[in-house]
Amino acid sequence: MAHQNKFVFKTKGRDTYEITDRVEQIVASSGVQTGLCNVFIHHTSASLIISENADPTVRVDLETILQRLAPDGDPEYRHNYEGDDDMSGHVRCMLTNDSITIPVTNGRPGLGSWQGVYLYEHRFGSFDRKVTVTVLG
Amino acid sequence: MAHQNKFVFKTKGRDTYEITDRVEQIVASSGVQTGLCNVFIHHTSASLIISENADPTVRVDLETILQRLAPDGDPEYRHNYEGDDDMSGHVRCMLTNDSITIPVTNGRPGLGSWQGVYLYEHRFGSFDRKVTVTVLG
Amino acid sequence: MAHQNKFVFKTKGRDTYEITDRVEQIVASSGVQTGLCNVFIHHTSASLIISENADPTVRVDLETILQRLAPDGDPEYRHNYEGDDDMSGHVRCMLTNDSITIPVTNGRPGLGSWQGVYLYEHRFGSFDRKVTVTVLG
Repeated sequence: MAHQNKFVFKTKGRDTYEITDRVEQIVASSGVQTGLCNVFIHHTSASLIISENADPTVRVDLETILQRLAPDGDPEYRHNYEGDDDMSGHVRCMLTNDSITIPVTNGRPGLGSWQGVYLYEHRFGSFDRKVTVTVLG
Repeated sequence: MAHQNKFVFKTKGRDTYEITDRVEQIVASSGVQTGLCNVFIHHTSASLIISENADPTVRVDLETILQRLAPDGDPEYRHNYEGDDDMSGHVRCMLTNDSITIPVTNGRPGLGSWQGVYLYEHRFGSFDRKVTVTVLG
Repeated sequence: MAHQNKFVFKTKGRDTYEITDRVEQIVASSGVQTGLCNVFIHHTSASLIISENADPTVRVDLETILQRLAPDGDPEYRHNYEGDDDMSGHVRCMLTNDSITIPVTNGRPGLGSWQGVYLYEHRFGSFDRKVTVTVLG
């Protein structure tokens, strides 16, 4: 049986926001002991990553690299209606994840010791980001 | 119960091809109301992305960036049996998705308003690309 | 019903290691005929890719590109506790996959003819990498 919950996360500018606890709560409330948990974000300029959850400078460095790979306001972009972070946000979504699928083991998301789930806001402004978590098992 | 359908999509050169309607039809025919839908492509030089579905120049710009990150005919490539788009196609697949997993909500793929599912052909020629859609719920 | 198996894979330095046979065995032992198989790695400096399984130079070239996109020991990295391959490993994980989801068809992972599943060790040393395979159907 499928269990599905949605939540809205308000971001405050380009950054990574840990949502591991939200995912854990939904998995716990599903009652599923063994199965899969899918976290999906309904946007094309915010995405999801699993990242090291101990040292915050890891995520600073991920941002450094994404700025190189998907430059803001690149002169070659044709799509820039909403500013310098518009098209770069779409590229960053392509290079990261629209959804993350995690095993459920003993009623919990089976993440490694150093793995956290993060919502990555790629725009400079504040947005309400919709996330759906589906648990099957 | 799992519902699975396959289709073949004929590409006509490097480009993005929207397949959202194919995915919607298979989800509808599965009868699943709440669950997950996985779209999988059986190739290593064509892949899948979720992208902004309103302005086509978004996908032009994604292509611009992929050409930088995975250059065609790069002099360092050792694998080039099938031409300049051979190895770049494999790199592009690594940087994008072999499969996309989407929540099913109210009998439909729960995509955001601006999200479309695209098959990304990375080769210059025309190919028959096999896709499998699996719906669980 | 969900079937779940775990295994540990000992890596010997930065390289790609094929694990397709391990995935096939777990799918076969699950008895699932039609469904989905998710392969998840519990680490942030080793990841998973689907790659061309015929010519090994494909994976040499993927490595060439990842070294460009995620340089080892980049002077801009702030996180380098464990050496030059520490932060680059995290970036490589962001650009590749924490998990891979494959359709199960006729009791087997429905991979294309040229698709293999690889564990990608991004660190220079030898590590015990934990992988969980979940089969639903």
